[in-house]
Amino acid sequence: MKASVFITLKSGVLDPQGKAIEGALHGLGFEDVSGVRQGKLIEIELSETDEAKARADVERMCERLLANPVMESYRIELSA
Amino acid sequence: MKASVFITLKSGVLDPQGKAIEGALHGLGFEDVSGVRQGKLIEIELSETDEAKARADVERMCERLLANPVMESYRIELSA
Repeated sequence: MKASVFITLKSGVLDPQGKAIEGALHGLGFEDVSGVRQGKLIEIELSETDEAKARADVERMCERLLANPVMESYRIELSA
Repeated sequence: MKASVFITLKSGVLDPQGKAIEGALHGLGFEDVSGVRQGKLIEIELSETDEAKARADVERMCERLLANPVMESYRIELSA
C-alpha cells in the first residue's frame, strides 16, 4: 500500500518561502498569482495491506516525525 | 481559481532527504516502511477563471521556475 502525505502550513503561519516564489513569479510576468504557499509531499510504501491500519500508522508517523502539529496540518491519501 | 502543484523527483533520482526520513521512521519503530520520497507541494491562487488557460499558465510556471524538468516531474490540480 502506498501513502501520500500532504503537509501544509496552517493558514495563520507566515510562509516566507511561498512569498519568495510569489515574488519570483511576478518577476517572470505571472502577475495574476497570489497566496502562494509551499508545503511538503511525502510518499511512503507500506507493507501493511489493511487500509484502516495503514492510515492509523501513517497518522502516528505524522504526529511523531513528519509534521509539526503546532504549525502544520496534514492530509493522508492511500492507494493500493 | 486555485492550483495545487505536486513536484516529485523522477524515479531514478537519488533522494537523500527521503532516505533520511525512512531511517528516522525505522528508528521510531515503523519497520514496514520503504521507498520514502520527499517532494514539494505548491499552492497558488490565480485570478484567471478559465480552467484551460489557468492550466497552461501553471504549466509555464512549472517549466520556468517551480520544477527542474531534468530531475523532477510535476502534476497540476485545479479547483474553483
